[in-house]
Amino acid sequence: MNYRIEKDTMGEVKVPADKYWGAQTERSRNNFKIGPEASMPAEIIEAFAYLKKAAAHANYDLGVLPIEKKDLISKVCNEILEKKLSDQFPLVIWQTGSGTQSNMNVNEVISNRALVLDGGKLGEKSPIHPNDDVNKSQSSNDTFPTAMHIAAYKKIVDHTIPAIEKLKNTLEKKSEKFKDIVKIGRTHLMDATPLTLGQEFSGYVAQLNHAIKAIKNTLPHLSELALGGTAVGTGLNTPKGYDVKVANYIAEFTKLPFITAHNKYEALAAHDAIVETHGALKQAAVSLYKIAQDIRLLASGPRSGIGEIHIPENEPGSSIMPGKVNPTQNEAMTMVCAQVLGNDITISFAGTQGNYELNVFKPVMAYNFLQSAQLIGDACISFEEHCAIGIEPNLKRIKELVNNSLMLVTALNTHIGYENAAKIAKTAHKNGTTLKEEAVNLGLLTPEQFDEWVKPEDMVGNLK
Amino acid sequence: MNYRIEKDTMGEVKVPADKYWGAQTERSRNNFKIGPEASMPAEIIEAFAYLKKAAAHANYDLGVLPIEKKDLISKVCNEILEKKLSDQFPLVIWQTGSGTQSNMNVNEVISNRALVLDGGKLGEKSPIHPNDDVNKSQSSNDTFPTAMHIAAYKKIVDHTIPAIEKLKNTLEKKSEKFKDIVKIGRTHLMDATPLTLGQEFSGYVAQLNHAIKAIKNTLPHLSELALGGTAVGTGLNTPKGYDVKVANYIAEFTKLPFITAHNKYEALAAHDAIVETHGALKQAAVSLYKIAQDIRLLASGPRSGIGEIHIPENEPGSSIMPGKVNPTQNEAMTMVCAQVLGNDITISFAGTQGNYELNVFKPVMAYNFLQSAQLIGDACISFEEHCAIGIEPNLKRIKELVNNSLMLVTALNTHIGYENAAKIAKTAHKNGTTLKEEAVNLGLLTPEQFDEWVKPEDMVGNLK
Amino acid sequence: MNYRIEKDTMGEVKVPADKYWGAQTERSRNNFKIGPEASMPAEIIEAFAYLKKAAAHANYDLGVLPIEKKDLISKVCNEILEKKLSDQFPLVIWQTGSGTQSNMNVNEVISNRALVLDGGKLGEKSPIHPNDDVNKSQSSNDTFPTAMHIAAYKKIVDHTIPAIEKLKNTLEKKSEKFKDIVKIGRTHLMDATPLTLGQEFSGYVAQLNHAIKAIKNTLPHLSELALGGTAVGTGLNTPKGYDVKVANYIAEFTKLPFITAHNKYEALAAHDAIVETHGALKQAAVSLYKIAQDIRLLASGPRSGIGEIHIPENEPGSSIMPGKVNPTQNEAMTMVCAQVLGNDITISFAGTQGNYELNVFKPVMAYNFLQSAQLIGDACISFEEHCAIGIEPNLKRIKELVNNSLMLVTALNTHIGYENAAKIAKTAHKNGTTLKEEAVNLGLLTPEQFDEWVKPEDMVGNLK
Amino acid sequence: MNYRIEKDTMGEVKVPADKYWGAQTERSRNNFKIGPEASMPAEIIEAFAYLKKAAAHANYDLGVLPIEKKDLISKVCNEILEKKLSDQFPLVIWQTGSGTQSNMNVNEVISNRALVLDGGKLGEKSPIHPNDDVNKSQSSNDTFPTAMHIAAYKKIVDHTIPAIEKLKNTLEKKSEKFKDIVKIGRTHLMDATPLTLGQEFSGYVAQLNHAIKAIKNTLPHLSELALGGTAVGTGLNTPKGYDVKVANYIAEFTKLPFITAHNKYEALAAHDAIVETHGALKQAAVSLYKIAQDIRLLASGPRSGIGEIHIPENEPGSSIMPGKVNPTQNEAMTMVCAQVLGNDITISFAGTQGNYELNVFKPVMAYNFLQSAQLIGDACISFEEHCAIGIEPNLKRIKELVNNSLMLVTALNTHIGYENAAKIAKTAHKNGTTLKEEAVNLGLLTPEQFDEWVKPEDMVGNLK
Repeated sequence: MNYRIEKDTMGEVKVPADKYWGAQTERSRNNFKIGPEASMPAEIIEAFAYLKKAAAHANYDLGVLPIEKKDLISKVCNEILEKKLSDQFPLVIWQTGSGTQSNMNVNEVISNRALVLDGGKLGEKSPIHPNDDVNKSQSSNDTFPTAMHIAAYKKIVDHTIPAIEKLKNTLEKKSEKFKDIVKIGRTHLMDATPLTLGQEFSGYVAQLNHAIKAIKNTLPHLSELALGGTAVGTGLNTPKGYDVKVANYIAEFTKLPFITAHNKYEALAAHDAIVETHGALKQAAVSLYKIAQDIRLLASGPRSGIGEIHIPENEPGSSIMPGKVNPTQNEAMTMVCAQVLGNDITISFAGTQGNYELNVFKPVMAYNFLQSAQLIGDACISFEEHCAIGIEPNLKRIKELVNNSLMLVTALNTHIGYENAAKIAKTAHKNGTTLKEEAVNLGLLTPEQFDEWVKPEDMVGNLK
Repeated sequence: MNYRIEKDTMGEVKVPADKYWGAQTERSRNNFKIGPEASMPAEIIEAFAYLKKAAAHANYDLGVLPIEKKDLISKVCNEILEKKLSDQFPLVIWQTGSGTQSNMNVNEVISNRALVLDGGKLGEKSPIHPNDDVNKSQSSNDTFPTAMHIAAYKKIVDHTIPAIEKLKNTLEKKSEKFKDIVKIGRTHLMDATPLTLGQEFSGYVAQLNHAIKAIKNTLPHLSELALGGTAVGTGLNTPKGYDVKVANYIAEFTKLPFITAHNKYEALAAHDAIVETHGALKQAAVSLYKIAQDIRLLASGPRSGIGEIHIPENEPGSSIMPGKVNPTQNEAMTMVCAQVLGNDITISFAGTQGNYELNVFKPVMAYNFLQSAQLIGDACISFEEHCAIGIEPNLKRIKELVNNSLMLVTALNTHIGYENAAKIAKTAHKNGTTLKEEAVNLGLLTPEQFDEWVKPEDMVGNLK
Repeated sequence: MNYRIEKDTMGEVKVPADKYWGAQTERSRNNFKIGPEASMPAEIIEAFAYLKKAAAHANYDLGVLPIEKKDLISKVCNEILEKKLSDQFPLVIWQTGSGTQSNMNVNEVISNRALVLDGGKLGEKSPIHPNDDVNKSQSSNDTFPTAMHIAAYKKIVDHTIPAIEKLKNTLEKKSEKFKDIVKIGRTHLMDATPLTLGQEFSGYVAQLNHAIKAIKNTLPHLSELALGGTAVGTGLNTPKGYDVKVANYIAEFTKLPFITAHNKYEALAAHDAIVETHGALKQAAVSLYKIAQDIRLLASGPRSGIGEIHIPENEPGSSIMPGKVNPTQNEAMTMVCAQVLGNDITISFAGTQGNYELNVFKPVMAYNFLQSAQLIGDACISFEEHCAIGIEPNLKRIKELVNNSLMLVTALNTHIGYENAAKIAKTAHKNGTTLKEEAVNLGLLTPEQFDEWVKPEDMVGNLK
Repeated sequence: MNYRIEKDTMGEVKVPADKYWGAQTERSRNNFKIGPEASMPAEIIEAFAYLKKAAAHANYDLGVLPIEKKDLISKVCNEILEKKLSDQFPLVIWQTGSGTQSNMNVNEVISNRALVLDGGKLGEKSPIHPNDDVNKSQSSNDTFPTAMHIAAYKKIVDHTIPAIEKLKNTLEKKSEKFKDIVKIGRTHLMDATPLTLGQEFSGYVAQLNHAIKAIKNTLPHLSELALGGTAVGTGLNTPKGYDVKVANYIAEFTKLPFITAHNKYEALAAHDAIVETHGALKQAAVSLYKIAQDIRLLASGPRSGIGEIHIPENEPGSSIMPGKVNPTQNEAMTMVCAQVLGNDITISFAGTQGNYELNVFKPVMAYNFLQSAQLIGDACISFEEHCAIGIEPNLKRIKELVNNSLMLVTALNTHIGYENAAKIAKTAHKNGTTLKEEAVNLGLLTPEQFDEWVKPEDMVGNLK
């Protein structure tokens, strides 16, 4: 491979000749061969492009960066946003915990690419210097957490929330459609009193509504940007008014309601906003697990399970059992939920470990957050399209099960008392008979009374 | 021991003669010898007293319970609230996952105590029957989650939030008091540019403000009560309007803004509200960990650590090293935080495992939630009283460290560029000299320029 | 209350007149009002009694403690072991992270009780001084981790392992008893090829065998005792040979194979042995969860679930649904498992947080470990006695389900190929018919061939 | 793009013309657009190649597969092992939880590639049928867990353990080299009695020795292979003796001591072996965290931290603070540890969720396991090469700190008692004086006695 020489404050480094990155990126590549290459999420690089452009604009407005430099920097940032430079960011998650090296990667690529656009030569650092120009009024310590918030917020509102809503809407339609289908209820996995299939599904809808609300509740914290705090939160080397202005530009460029953080020390040294929003994602995972688990239990069978609903048959289910079809979307969903629960621990643990003016677990927090947000979104869409939308009731089976149920006896509590009702149920259970037979045998009520009082369809109430 | 005979639908059981509980409580005692006895939190029992009284009132209002029964039930509930019957609730967390046995424990105690108040005999179940009267219009499946929400909400607003606020207020006062003390900043545990001690503490205040806000954001979900859903969420065996009315009574009795759950199926089968609020408690633990950890690092020494602050000396710190004093409050706090992180996993895992119409991990969720809420509150109060309030700066040490710092060189970036500044710092580091010496030696600036440009007190900005 | 004055190196403290503890215990009581009082596990206190007695013996043998002091200290230790002084240890978990205050609590109680036995007066510290005598050749830093290992090891071998074995033995007997009962298998919750109920249960036995083996594998690490390391691991202020000797005495007194730690620095600064053994407990919890979950699914119904087995009916299952019986032992077990999973995070997190020569999360690690070890043991015993032992097959239901199953078609793979077999299964599924009907209709085999090739009892193989 | 038509039991599917995979792989690609494409670890595919080849050999030996088929299948497996077909496995983790689709992906690729090698046409399924030949005597349910164990075991012994050992060996050399450097000890982050730097490092070595031993303890369980259990563990459709034989072939091909699982039901329905070994990886992460954390604390500064050791300066540490160097390898390591702690929860949770004859969280368990094993290994190598190997003591600083320490007073306990010693330390602390001055001032000993009794180098004992 061809190389060129790049320099930083520590000396010279050989860099692949065809790459825009510089000495510090290359040092990081060599020093951190941990995990798969280029594992720093693309969303973080994109967020950096927004913020570097915003910083150039703010610096220009405040008189500390000439217009030509602002324009050159912005131009390269736009190229990054258009994904034209995607192969220029080779660094990994498992680098310095401040993300300094990825910040420098972006600085170096913008500098070198700008040089080329300006007709210059790679590595000259002029007219655009990676530190003095691209990084002006910035530090890794405020840019990286800013990039984390931009990437996280965007992912949540562009992907995760709409995907959960898509699934919720479909479940809501199912709930409406199934509102008159009376079925047996189950508590402790055991037969209980009836409800409608629509009521059952309404619980799922309520869970997802709460999950979406919980995620949204956390967004104001996530909208706070560290940028302007620089090295330790004091804003050293920034012009007055810079923090507010740069946040405004980021808001303008991303079309999202970002603001400057109320307290820059918190924004560098803690990542409680990431902990907070991921906590809500974890809640969503908890909800989705219950839903996906219920649906596969309801669809289990076809002959020796519950079998009250049908779900789409998307692919052969077994390499050995011919004709087998499995609830595979539910499995993908529940695996995603298991991942999100683990990610929450990684994020929470990392969140505790800030010291003094900096938390140096930024990349691992960003990585886990974005993975969770992506996976939940993807899984909701996949589950909606390949499972939820096709759920159909198995009316024959549903009817058979509800009519057999001993727990219909509960309707008699208010007529003959709990203890007498229990006697009927237990006798029928022992004898394998019906409630009606035993109710009459025990002399507790007449057949007519039984028929009048025990109607599954009257037991489902009117609660949504 | 003396016994009497109690009965339930399964037959006779011997119960200690001097206890109010009945057959089902005794069965549970015998069948679940798991963990320490009476581990069901007292807060849950108290919450049951509120809800049983509220149910009696709602039932009376709606014409399904005579006034005498309402009054008798309410009287016993008041006794429970006055802690007169605290030895009547012997059951453990590790029982049925619906908490049925604790619901029945309350039902049985109210029934039998009412009988005694009424001049009757234990076990007669008349005039107050544990199921038909005390449990009227209820099921364990809606009472237990209601008790969970009442207990959790009360604990949070009566204890946890005020305690966090107490600590936050003290830290805020310290932040104000320390606002002019310029000290070295540290990032990556390494020397960085200066800030004030007040700024450093302002980050802690910001963290706790966000933590409190995050907890409050979750309270609306927690204010939703399952009561009225009965066995599976349909409200079977409840009079019309009961759910709203009973929630109103609970709100009235507890003076907290409880409402009936929008969806009873969610309220029985999922406990996402518990997951949600505990997620916010976990966030608070993450914040508190960082704060307590920072403070013990800053106070470390007395001679071979950081030593920038003094914390109160509360007790001898070592059984072997005479004169040793340790940051013991910080240790208690960080241990509490470790506990809360683990509790969050227990709660989240349990939250995923609802099936169909019921989640049967209710007691373990309640137990972990209340433990976290109690411990965070207790630890904040203890930490405030025995540590935070007594924090004092070690001005001599602070000054010495900031003046020695090589990172003051950062102030020169905007004057001589990042690379020249780096040269100065590296040379001084290598030679063990001062920045000023090397800056002049290297011919990069005059001593006067150095003195003008490098002033720690000018480097702390104006960001709060 | 009556008080007396006790003194330590910080000055005078008022202590309840009727208690043996001294100044440092009292300071801790006042400074750490966090969580329930006296939450330090009794097992830790007991372990301290073993180690204080062993230290006195070793100190005597090595000539640094007179025989009278050794005898007095030993006498009080024996009283503690006989639980005669149980009300003398009021401290909480949430104290200093080294457990110094509990070490001093023990030292003070032994000193004062010895004084009384010797005819002296409380607080005089002579003839037995809490530091100079009871704590001789010790530090909290090596005594507390030693107590942790003693308590943990004892709990595991006295309680946890025998309890898991008890459950395993019962499941093994069931497996043997059920070895000829052919039933349908289920994968993905869906109908699959048959196996015997005995084979199914043999999987549970194998899980528990592996769990027990995994726990045992960790015991050698747990058998290493820190005692002899004193303050930082160097053994300062101990006589030569003390560490080995004191471990021998502990082994002798507890009848367990304790040895002195190979490396005392590890033994003070890390608690990887606790992490390691609890990791194995967590594995046991994972296994037990699967088993308890399976058994409640198999027992679900009675009419609208799987219903292949019966489990004992131990108590009425519902306060509203008469005659309902629930798998409550399974619920207690799965709640315990959820707790253990959370405890593992607390322990692992705490384990990472040692600094330099000490980990100061000792009490929280001990607390969570002992809780898990106790709960797993208790739950296994309870589950065995009240559930596993009474499991019976529902032969009628089992036969009905296996004979209906479409997955019997798998037996035809080797005769007519996977694709033809799939065609039969899919057609029967669509038409609601039997495999045999469709096999013949499709012309793929004769009725005789079907009967010869498709026999559930021939499909269960001979694998244990 | 060009397509061809492939068929499975559900019908026709369009597949990219230039790919070997078939209908079921393509269905999975379309149905599971969750997360990044091709996220199924390459190690799993490699493991499948070993097992498919082994199965072909065993099937041939047992007379159920002709030699030509065995040879063709083996040839393609070898190509996979030589990484010639790496672009043929496009599936994701978030598919069916049994991994059926990846098993079929391998079956289809082997079938089609064999066809081509044999001069046939893609999709013809003859002479090598994906199910009837490649999958002969197998099911996804036994192949995927077998692949998990092969991949996991290989990764651990080829990468993780050697990498931990490499780091351990370097730390051991450092420990030996530093054995005479007396330094201050620290407990509770506070100054304590001295030890040598070599002793301090010996604790790290002991931790890693225990971690390696713990991992090795778990390998026997991981060496058990499910293969031979087929669909539900009974071994349906396998020839007699197949399970042992196929495990032997796998052992032969991989040169690792694999055996057939003692119980196939456990091996399909539970993945406790994965839980067990990952538990040990988590323990290693706990150890590594402590070590990396200690080393960065010891190296903190350069002027305002602890500064007792120097670590290599690998790259510029700040984009704003010139000359700053950070403990970046330690940060990468601690981030990895945070990831592993989270992964452990994902794996443990997933491990609990098997039902009946199958656990359907296989891919997520494999993914998290392999990530942890890779990352720990990579991080150990990186940390060793770029940090541990270059650790040097800062002798001047070490000496200065130990000589100043008040905790040297502990040496006087055995001469003048704990209380007198405490008095000296407290007075010196208050007055900012030396121990010697105050010892003499207080009349407790002569200067000569002090010099004789208080020697740091005599306080470090002889414990390794």
